[in-house]
Amino acid sequence: MAILGVDELQAILSAAFPGSDVPQVESVDDQSVLVSVAITDRHGRPGGTLSGPTMMTLADTAAWLAIMSQIGPVLLAVTTSLHIDFLRKPTLVDVVAEGRLLKLGKSLAVVDVGIRSVAAQELVAKAQVTYSIPPGGRPPR
Amino acid sequence: MAILGVDELQAILSAAFPGSDVPQVESVDDQSVLVSVAITDRHGRPGGTLSGPTMMTLADTAAWLAIMSQIGPVLLAVTTSLHIDFLRKPTLVDVVAEGRLLKLGKSLAVVDVGIRSVAAQELVAKAQVTYSIPPGGRPPR
Amino acid sequence: MAILGVDELQAILSAAFPGSDVPQVESVDDQSVLVSVAITDRHGRPGGTLSGPTMMTLADTAAWLAIMSQIGPVLLAVTTSLHIDFLRKPTLVDVVAEGRLLKLGKSLAVVDVGIRSVAAQELVAKAQVTYSIPPGGRPPR
Amino acid sequence: MAILGVDELQAILSAAFPGSDVPQVESVDDQSVLVSVAITDRHGRPGGTLSGPTMMTLADTAAWLAIMSQIGPVLLAVTTSLHIDFLRKPTLVDVVAEGRLLKLGKSLAVVDVGIRSVAAQELVAKAQVTYSIPPGGRPPR
Repeated sequence: MAILGVDELQAILSAAFPGSDVPQVESVDDQSVLVSVAITDRHGRPGGTLSGPTMMTLADTAAWLAIMSQIGPVLLAVTTSLHIDFLRKPTLVDVVAEGRLLKLGKSLAVVDVGIRSVAAQELVAKAQVTYSIPPGGRPPR
Repeated sequence: MAILGVDELQAILSAAFPGSDVPQVESVDDQSVLVSVAITDRHGRPGGTLSGPTMMTLADTAAWLAIMSQIGPVLLAVTTSLHIDFLRKPTLVDVVAEGRLLKLGKSLAVVDVGIRSVAAQELVAKAQVTYSIPPGGRPPR
Repeated sequence: MAILGVDELQAILSAAFPGSDVPQVESVDDQSVLVSVAITDRHGRPGGTLSGPTMMTLADTAAWLAIMSQIGPVLLAVTTSLHIDFLRKPTLVDVVAEGRLLKLGKSLAVVDVGIRSVAAQELVAKAQVTYSIPPGGRPPR
Repeated sequence: MAILGVDELQAILSAAFPGSDVPQVESVDDQSVLVSVAITDRHGRPGGTLSGPTMMTLADTAAWLAIMSQIGPVLLAVTTSLHIDFLRKPTLVDVVAEGRLLKLGKSLAVVDVGIRSVAAQELVAKAQVTYSIPPGGRPPR
């Protein structure tokens, strides 16, 4: 069961990246978190497509939120690896990422992240992201 | 819609690896293929767990079958990259892999593969596999 | 032999990302390109470390430059996959990425990218990046 | 400095895989291990090329040996992730893998592995492999 909800995750995100346009946490359930990003021209690339770094950053954020939703605010968890396949060229519309926990161990968590354009079914990118959870990093419950 | 079924994929697999114990094709549908491997002691590792190479080989095979189920016997398709996260130590029981197409382009196909022990729900490994389909490699239909 | 030098790559980068702080192209040789990024507070994360997205973006850019240095300005080349391992927490100092071509095929190029802090030897991150080169994407020579 | 040499690593490998054709440990130094595999027809694939699983297995083994050469016989270290890019189709000749430590932490080790055909310079495959070292897994020195 998720121990942090939409509002709590949104507050953590805004506090961690003050002054930035942070993604919007859309929903949280037992195994997954849904996050969206409002796309503007500055996310674009030649050819009117969404930049790779925008999608990699979103995948990283969605994975972090999926982990925190289950174990609380582990602000010092760090990404140890990220693998992403870019599947289709997305147009410059808002995108949604779904982070789904594959493993939540004592020191490592692995999250599957699918990214698609809003209102589309097909994925534009798919990632597998590993985070390291520091010893004592899990907040007391 | 799948254009090759269980029996056809099984025949291709047996012909490609004569004299080997090939995995068993369990089912095929529009987007995915289910394949199982009967595990014996020779797949084991110290500690009574299933070897990583067994799972990597299975992920590669499941991806190849998922592609062929949609476009026919592209025997010369080759793996260009494989990423796998090992999530849990599986015991030495039979395993099942589900290969699901993420992208089927003209020259590249990307397949998501989840591996679990038979009769279990949790994944023991998760892979993303990319194949290159040679020009003219798609059989005429 | 490289067919584009430091100044030409720098000009392509600045034109592709107008109005941004683009990385600085430091050197180019037969197989590799060296690129640096001036780090400021906005690249930081809690704990005074460099953000993962900064390193992923740099890896992606270094790979693109390594390819263009050999085949010319293929502006429409796109990243098809990126794998990165984060090895150490870098402090907030400038970083350098070295992109080295592993393969330069007709339609796919694979680049190895190592990232380290300026004046340090140890890598802070290591990536393998694949780009797709569009048909006819290679400029005439 | 390496604390295990060629003979010791070879003995560990042979003991871990009794009855198998194990790779041959060629050399060991401070940061890397060189391992070779004698290729026979059973490693082949249609088109006279070396199978992907042969190369993945070799990458996994080379990474394990590179770690053990530095910290001793951690037999229970397990692969947590493996990423491999297949660069060229190798012919059916013997292959050599070089495992080079990128990071040797308390609980995680990351190894870069390059694979080439004997007597060739160009890599046929390139991998990044992560191992988890169990708590207390490092032998006393």
